[in-house]
Amino acid sequence: MSVDDRVARLREEAAAAGLDAVLVTSPPSIFYLTGLDAEPFERLYAVAVTASGGALIVPALDREGAERAPSGLDVVDYTAASDGFPELGGVLDGAQAIGVEEEHLSLARARRLQNGGAELRDAQSLVMGLRQRKDAEELDAIRHACTVVVDAMERMFARLRIGDIEREVNAQIAFELASAGATESHPLILFGPNASRPHDSPGDRPLTPGDVVCADVSARIDGYWADLTRCATAGPPSDWAQRAWTVVRDAQAAAIDVARVGATAQDVDAAQRAIVEGAPDLGACLHGAGHAVGTEIHEPPFLVPGRDAPLAAGHVLTIEPGLYAEGVGGIRLEDDVAVTDGDPALLSDMPLALRELRVDP
Amino acid sequence: MSVDDRVARLREEAAAAGLDAVLVTSPPSIFYLTGLDAEPFERLYAVAVTASGGALIVPALDREGAERAPSGLDVVDYTAASDGFPELGGVLDGAQAIGVEEEHLSLARARRLQNGGAELRDAQSLVMGLRQRKDAEELDAIRHACTVVVDAMERMFARLRIGDIEREVNAQIAFELASAGATESHPLILFGPNASRPHDSPGDRPLTPGDVVCADVSARIDGYWADLTRCATAGPPSDWAQRAWTVVRDAQAAAIDVARVGATAQDVDAAQRAIVEGAPDLGACLHGAGHAVGTEIHEPPFLVPGRDAPLAAGHVLTIEPGLYAEGVGGIRLEDDVAVTDGDPALLSDMPLALRELRVDP
Repeated sequence: MSVDDRVARLREEAAAAGLDAVLVTSPPSIFYLTGLDAEPFERLYAVAVTASGGALIVPALDREGAERAPSGLDVVDYTAASDGFPELGGVLDGAQAIGVEEEHLSLARARRLQNGGAELRDAQSLVMGLRQRKDAEELDAIRHACTVVVDAMERMFARLRIGDIEREVNAQIAFELASAGATESHPLILFGPNASRPHDSPGDRPLTPGDVVCADVSARIDGYWADLTRCATAGPPSDWAQRAWTVVRDAQAAAIDVARVGATAQDVDAAQRAIVEGAPDLGACLHGAGHAVGTEIHEPPFLVPGRDAPLAAGHVLTIEPGLYAEGVGGIRLEDDVAVTDGDPALLSDMPLALRELRVDP
Repeated sequence: MSVDDRVARLREEAAAAGLDAVLVTSPPSIFYLTGLDAEPFERLYAVAVTASGGALIVPALDREGAERAPSGLDVVDYTAASDGFPELGGVLDGAQAIGVEEEHLSLARARRLQNGGAELRDAQSLVMGLRQRKDAEELDAIRHACTVVVDAMERMFARLRIGDIEREVNAQIAFELASAGATESHPLILFGPNASRPHDSPGDRPLTPGDVVCADVSARIDGYWADLTRCATAGPPSDWAQRAWTVVRDAQAAAIDVARVGATAQDVDAAQRAIVEGAPDLGACLHGAGHAVGTEIHEPPFLVPGRDAPLAAGHVLTIEPGLYAEGVGGIRLEDDVAVTDGDPALLSDMPLALRELRVDP
């Protein structure tokens, strides 16, 4: 489906929902609807879709880039002397009931629109409903992003040696991903006890014999993210590492098997949680089963307790259970899985194996 | 001033403004108040400051990291089964008039708080009023970040050769910055006509004899950003490059000289604009004079027409005029400048010179 087809579908759905217009402001949604990589900083970037038209609103300094995007929408720009709202008002052309991305639009911008007479309604799920169901071309884009990430991870594991510094290992893979065309990347490769904190920042730790290596690597290629995690040990795995890896592998397999039409987000979480929480001697279950992925690295549905969002064909989910033992390490396994009308489909084919790294220098 | 002193000052100013509490949700403000590097994705991270207390609210998976932050605030966490609002409600403890960062808080979260009975008031300028006035320690942090960026830029210019690929040059400097301790970086080094679009993405262009190189490199080190731009030409400069560079240099000098207590944001912009717009044959003036910089890469005050925010001692401003000629190239010069009680103070000492790169391979 072309970006213009997506805009047309959004226009139809907005009309069916009784909206006069939809205002899309988050960069991943702007990319989805126009192919433009928006980097707003403090400036207003927006796609406004009205019953009969719409436009892509950008700062004047980005006009040329916006015009090169594969979108049929008019480009409306504004200079540094404006905040873009007068120009946006012209495009909205008196629309009253305006659907907005409530989880992205700031309160300041919302109040600005409301003071201008707009009645803001939540169109988050309307926009995400489109973004969530990936078509064949989008699945291919994620598959391609996975191949780039897998290649970089395999090279990283093959190269990793005792004494390598955590921060430098992360910097190196970010470099390789950028060289391979990633416009953004988010490597998080942690050693030993650092891996027990799933969101730690890479630091000065040298890889030490006996360390577990938890390597979570994500990158955005041609607009779509891949997000994968594999683990290794420096030398033979400890009893803890081997047992934790086996539990996490089983949890991941169980959760993937649940990722089917008819299940809900929380069902996927429950499948992994039952297994991970069944091994409290090995560590804690610190997070949910995963999240959707696409033009944004973390998209809904989020696979956590209490979310009863039904899964649908075209959803792409990271499924990434983990076990975290303070002072010891962390094990996580993550794949990107498409929900289909049949069986869940892995979008990459990287071996799960707990890798054993050489300890000779 | 310690992070706890900053919280104490925020509490005083909030009380003086008649607020029962302040809720801070943007990662740069959370870092400023706690020293914690928050990476929220979709999860709620917040500093809530009440008349008698307050807390740092984080997802359970980040509790350990939050506890290691140099903050005396209590850490309140919530599990994957919660969205953090019940726990936040406990900390706010019935506070009615709550100051929020209106330009960061999403409409969805604002409505959630309002539905719970809160009356939300804009505390953006209250929080930014604290963040904007850097103390001596913060100025030193930005100076240090500048030295890291300058070193990386000098190595990049020394290494740059005909045939080097734009994307790879950017990837390489990002790698060096990360290796040197940058937790984030944002290199934007563009060649030839690509440099005429100040926000273009680095691509496949090889450096070609006659190209201008516009190198805008920013990085965050120990929590603070540096943001610098210098230019070069591949071989001797064209008449256009030499003339545009001279105009931009003059515009930057004029704007820096205006960055004093008593002037406003728009005065700094007007000083560069008068000079840059006086050379329309050399290109267009596509953006304002710059922005403040600190724990966030772009902070207010923004140096654009119409902003009458008064400058104060401790503000750190990027001053970065540019000239952009479609199909030809772009020239920009950027330094980080502290407003003081005396003369404006450059926080780095990188020569402005239009560098001439060797064209032999």
